[in-house]
Amino acid sequence: MRPVEFVDVEFFRKQLGVECTRADPSRLVDWTGQVKNQSDTTHYVVYPTTTRHVSCIARYCVSRGIAIVPQGGNTGLVGGSVPLAAELLLSLDRMASVESFDDLTGVAVTQAGATLSCLDRFVKAAGYTVPLDLGPRDRVTVGGAVATNAGGLRFGRYGSLHGSILGLEVVLADERGTVLDLGLSTALMKDNTGYHLRNLFIGSEGTLGIVTRCALRCVIDYPSVQLVTVTCRDFEDVLAVLKIAKRELGEILSAFEFLDRESLAMAASQVTQDEVDGLVGGEFVGGDSSDEFYCCIVECRGSCEEHDLVKIDRFSRLVDVGPNASARIVDHGDHDRIWKVRTSVSAGLKAFGTVFKFDISLPTREMHEMVAATRRRLEQGDAPPGTVTCGFGHIMDGNLHLNVTVADRFDDTVKSILDPWVFKEVKRRKGSISAEHGIGWY
Amino acid sequence: MRPVEFVDVEFFRKQLGVECTRADPSRLVDWTGQVKNQSDTTHYVVYPTTTRHVSCIARYCVSRGIAIVPQGGNTGLVGGSVPLAAELLLSLDRMASVESFDDLTGVAVTQAGATLSCLDRFVKAAGYTVPLDLGPRDRVTVGGAVATNAGGLRFGRYGSLHGSILGLEVVLADERGTVLDLGLSTALMKDNTGYHLRNLFIGSEGTLGIVTRCALRCVIDYPSVQLVTVTCRDFEDVLAVLKIAKRELGEILSAFEFLDRESLAMAASQVTQDEVDGLVGGEFVGGDSSDEFYCCIVECRGSCEEHDLVKIDRFSRLVDVGPNASARIVDHGDHDRIWKVRTSVSAGLKAFGTVFKFDISLPTREMHEMVAATRRRLEQGDAPPGTVTCGFGHIMDGNLHLNVTVADRFDDTVKSILDPWVFKEVKRRKGSISAEHGIGWY
Repeated sequence: MRPVEFVDVEFFRKQLGVECTRADPSRLVDWTGQVKNQSDTTHYVVYPTTTRHVSCIARYCVSRGIAIVPQGGNTGLVGGSVPLAAELLLSLDRMASVESFDDLTGVAVTQAGATLSCLDRFVKAAGYTVPLDLGPRDRVTVGGAVATNAGGLRFGRYGSLHGSILGLEVVLADERGTVLDLGLSTALMKDNTGYHLRNLFIGSEGTLGIVTRCALRCVIDYPSVQLVTVTCRDFEDVLAVLKIAKRELGEILSAFEFLDRESLAMAASQVTQDEVDGLVGGEFVGGDSSDEFYCCIVECRGSCEEHDLVKIDRFSRLVDVGPNASARIVDHGDHDRIWKVRTSVSAGLKAFGTVFKFDISLPTREMHEMVAATRRRLEQGDAPPGTVTCGFGHIMDGNLHLNVTVADRFDDTVKSILDPWVFKEVKRRKGSISAEHGIGWY
Repeated sequence: MRPVEFVDVEFFRKQLGVECTRADPSRLVDWTGQVKNQSDTTHYVVYPTTTRHVSCIARYCVSRGIAIVPQGGNTGLVGGSVPLAAELLLSLDRMASVESFDDLTGVAVTQAGATLSCLDRFVKAAGYTVPLDLGPRDRVTVGGAVATNAGGLRFGRYGSLHGSILGLEVVLADERGTVLDLGLSTALMKDNTGYHLRNLFIGSEGTLGIVTRCALRCVIDYPSVQLVTVTCRDFEDVLAVLKIAKRELGEILSAFEFLDRESLAMAASQVTQDEVDGLVGGEFVGGDSSDEFYCCIVECRGSCEEHDLVKIDRFSRLVDVGPNASARIVDHGDHDRIWKVRTSVSAGLKAFGTVFKFDISLPTREMHEMVAATRRRLEQGDAPPGTVTCGFGHIMDGNLHLNVTVADRFDDTVKSILDPWVFKEVKRRKGSISAEHGIGWY
């Protein structure tokens, strides 16, 4: 592997007619700030606009020993889109066209660089919506989501991209820059000819090739969106509420998120007290108590508001009389405030100190115990006093975001306690050390 | 490849302790009757009960040059589970245990030979149901469905097995009889470590290995099941009704099947006139008219009958006033009769004569035209007078079952007209020559 030289830049510009510039420093560090390019090399970013460009760039780089890092929105949390040495950055920013949409089937064909927001706006005009949704939806690209097999907020309802992606076009990093059409040009819902190779590329994180175009099956955009928040004093109650939600809300249940006490405290540092109260109904008393406290956000989407209101009302009443929990139906005008608290956890953790993030899958019943075990382990290992352990995430999917944040600057004690203990502990509990973020740099 | 000899049978019986018998003739022919073993060899079938057995059998057979055909329910329509020469049949009949079920996540772990019915009964006790359903559900095995990437009646709502299968255990036909655990032992909803190799096995039809155990994500079994039948005089109207169904029924829509006039005539030969009338409200006037005629079966499943009845009532009224179509809500007591007509098409075709079956995917709008083009092609090619062309299938999935049946005994004229014309025509229309049946013998 050799660094990009000016002669390469000239080739991209003059022979291919593709823009190639020095990379902005923001492209050389990941969202967490922990995976950062340390080399002295000048980094370049190339901006292809067509699949042919990507193919030519791949061929050129292979023949000259230049490594490529494809970069979508650079919103990943595992450093997968950051060059670590002298790689060429291949940005998908200029390949952002939604190319076609079939309003009968909901199938959209798009270039890989289209953002989730952009695609969603496009298909909403025809009454559809994108089956996956992530916090940074304005920057997350479809191709990046495919490459990392992103999960997100709608996974519990619409499942994984292995089900939603109907076709891919990928460029291999081989000597010919081979372009593979893996069901893209037909974009059929069912095709049982040959092996399903496209699934291999979903979650392959750029190791097999560069995703250039995607066919995605979109889902109906329901007019009725309802939100209920539930607070619990015990994780068993959270599970009981989840069961009631699955039974009573059933086909309209679209998300079931949970935050523990410490996660909420982190979010609280980024939002107003009013916003916190909106979520927990004034029940939250800060992060210091040793009592358990959980807050759940239950979202429903359906075709008939009148019916959905009856369903969430019944759900709320069953929650209030059943487990030790209390439910609050959220006014439509307050939905954004609720989600703002949920999506502020990460920013709160980052503002507090150095964050160690673990995106793990676990048998659902063990989520609380995993967070508690991590906290005990840190206490026993003499982690500094300003160390906070918290858990939040997508409980319907068995996906826990376990986070540890240290108020001091980067602390080797914490790192040495957690690594590799967390991974071993997850394995012992038959979980996975990467649920939806991927492996990336790690 | 060499035939199975008595010494092999003795090995299976005495060394492995596995039953091995002469194969019943029913195991040597596929459901269509067209793929039939013609060899003079004595065929044997071996009945492993554990994964270790399968591994030992695979290792033994590889070392001795014996080919294996795994056989589940032998309900496939492409001859994939029938030995064509002297292969050993490996039956999954005795590997039919449902091993575990998590009532929080709906994840079931089962041996590959469990039938859909058996698994469905198991999970129904906990309020769940299997996300795929096929006509011969009492015989279709979970492993067979995985190996062929079966689609079926619930595909439109719950998507493909690529989304529902969370883990597989497979035995490779290599010298060690290697057992691969592809997410089976953890059965997590999200796991982004490594490549998603299990998807390669979904639809690989036994060419990569033998599926021995599966982890499947089941879905809520809703108490309310509603059925509406719709008759149309034009395919454009069918599409208009589909659009109304997607918008109005949305989250409760669970199936949208269609039959054309000739399909209905075939089914009619197998059921009573009353049963036909139940489906089409007396509108159907036989198969001779040259006018178009379509019958749709729209099924809904939801958590609240009261709400669902309102939704199907509104849907029916919109159908009646909108496209040139008429809708009838079906009494609960008549549901089975409706489905009986739908599932009798195949038997009707078979009773009529020699059937040429095509399971194709197409852009939805071209389904009618594909059937009409096939009919014209046969007429122009001087197919015998008793030749009937019909189309039915899963319109939500773009999946057309194009069938031609010839009253005479096997007719080479028809075969030579259709083959390879149909395949070329499907390709020209950007479809797939195998939607959900697989490739099998063909």
